[in-house]
Amino acid sequence: MSPKTMDKKAVILLSGGLDSATVLAMACAQGYACHALSFRYGQRHAIEVAAARKVAQSHGVSAHVEMEIDLRAFGGSALTDDIEVPKGRDMAAISVEGGGIPVTYVPARNTIFLSFALAYAETIGAHDIFIGVNALDYSGYPDCRPDYIAAFEKLANLATKSGVEDVEKMTLHAPLIDLTKAEIIAKGMALGVDYGITTSCYDPGEGGRPCGACDSCVLRAKGFDEVGCVDPALAQLG
Amino acid sequence: MSPKTMDKKAVILLSGGLDSATVLAMACAQGYACHALSFRYGQRHAIEVAAARKVAQSHGVSAHVEMEIDLRAFGGSALTDDIEVPKGRDMAAISVEGGGIPVTYVPARNTIFLSFALAYAETIGAHDIFIGVNALDYSGYPDCRPDYIAAFEKLANLATKSGVEDVEKMTLHAPLIDLTKAEIIAKGMALGVDYGITTSCYDPGEGGRPCGACDSCVLRAKGFDEVGCVDPALAQLG
Repeated sequence: MSPKTMDKKAVILLSGGLDSATVLAMACAQGYACHALSFRYGQRHAIEVAAARKVAQSHGVSAHVEMEIDLRAFGGSALTDDIEVPKGRDMAAISVEGGGIPVTYVPARNTIFLSFALAYAETIGAHDIFIGVNALDYSGYPDCRPDYIAAFEKLANLATKSGVEDVEKMTLHAPLIDLTKAEIIAKGMALGVDYGITTSCYDPGEGGRPCGACDSCVLRAKGFDEVGCVDPALAQLG
Repeated sequence: MSPKTMDKKAVILLSGGLDSATVLAMACAQGYACHALSFRYGQRHAIEVAAARKVAQSHGVSAHVEMEIDLRAFGGSALTDDIEVPKGRDMAAISVEGGGIPVTYVPARNTIFLSFALAYAETIGAHDIFIGVNALDYSGYPDCRPDYIAAFEKLANLATKSGVEDVEKMTLHAPLIDLTKAEIIAKGMALGVDYGITTSCYDPGEGGRPCGACDSCVLRAKGFDEVGCVDPALAQLG
C-alpha cells in the first residue's frame, strides 16, 4: 500500500469484464479505498453485473453501487437493441482501421458511466475516478481514446465543486489506455486478479457461456493466447 | 420556421420548469424537430416530470422520453437526500457571492443529463442539444457556467461518431446562459409559452403547490415581478 494514497477514496467503473477487474486491482494496490460502480443499462449481457459483484467482493471494496439505467429507451446498439452482434470477425476487421465504429458501440455510454462516477465521487469526497478503457485493442469506440479521457477530466473539474471552490482537483485514471490485452492480463495476473470470475462476451449463451465469436471474445482469446495462458473462465466451463 | 434548421432534429432537456420550457419554445421557433428528454432522478419535486409532459405536449414535440435514474443511490443533495431545502433566503444569499454552492446542488446532475442527451442525439442522428442553464440567476451551481458548457460541447464531439467519422459536429445550445430570469420570461411570453403549466419549486406541497420560499421560488417570483406580470402558475392556484 502506498502511503501517498492510503485512505483516499476512489470510484472505479466495474463492468465485470477483464479490463475493469484489472483496473480495480491496480487501484486497490495503490492503496485507494475503492468504491465500485456498475450498471444494468439494458445490456444483452447483463450477467456481467453478477460478475462485477464477484470481482468487487474478491477485492474487498469499500462499497459497490449497482445503478439501473435503461439505455434501451434510446437503443441504437447491438448491445441494447434488436441488432445482431457481429460474430467471427478477425483482428483486421476488429481493428480501428478495419471498418470504423462497430454496431456494438453504445452511443455515449462511457460519457454516461463517467458522469455517474463523477456524481458518486463528488458525493463521497473522492477525487480519483478509474476507468478501464484502452486505445490499442479498442474495437473502434470513439469514447476509448486518450483525447476523450483528457476532455472528460477537464469537464469533471468544471462540472463540480472543484471548479468553484478551493478543493482538490478530480483526476481521471485510465491506466490501461496504452496497453495491449496481453499486457493487461499479465498485469492483472501479477496482482492476483481471478479472471475466472470475469466475463467479456457480448452475447453469452445459457449459463453465461461465452459465444467465443464476438469481437470481445476474440480480443480476450487473443490476449490469453499471447500471454500463453488458458483463460480460466473457459477452463472452468470445461 | 427557419429554412436553415427545418427538419433538423434536436434534443431538448426538459425539466418542467420555467427555463427549459422557454428553451423548448426557442428551439421549436427555430424550426427544429424537437425531441424532449426528462428525468425522474429521485428528486423531491418529481411532479416536475408531469409538468414536463404538459409542456412537451403544448409545443407539439416529435418525441418525449422520460428516463428513470435513481440519484438517491448517491444522495448528497437536498433534492435527493434527507437534507432540508433552504427556505426564505434573500437574493443576496442566493447569489453566487452569497454563500457558495447551495445544498440543493445535485452532484454532477447536468453532466449526467447532458450525457443522456448526447446518447439520445447520437442515436436519432441529431447534432443539436439544448439546455436551459443560465449563469446570472444561477444559484451558484458549478455546472451552469459558460466554461462548463464549452467543455461539454468539446467532450461531446470526442465522445461520439462525430469525433471519428466525417459527420456533422455536435452543438450544445445554452440560449439562456446570459439572461436574467425576467429576460427569460419576457422571451418565453413572446413565444407563447404557457408558464401556468410549469413548476419550479424544489419542495412543493400538496397538489404541487409551490412553497414560495425556496431559492427556486424566490428567483421565479423575482423574475415575474421584474417583468410586471402575475405568475400564471400562482394565479391558477388562487
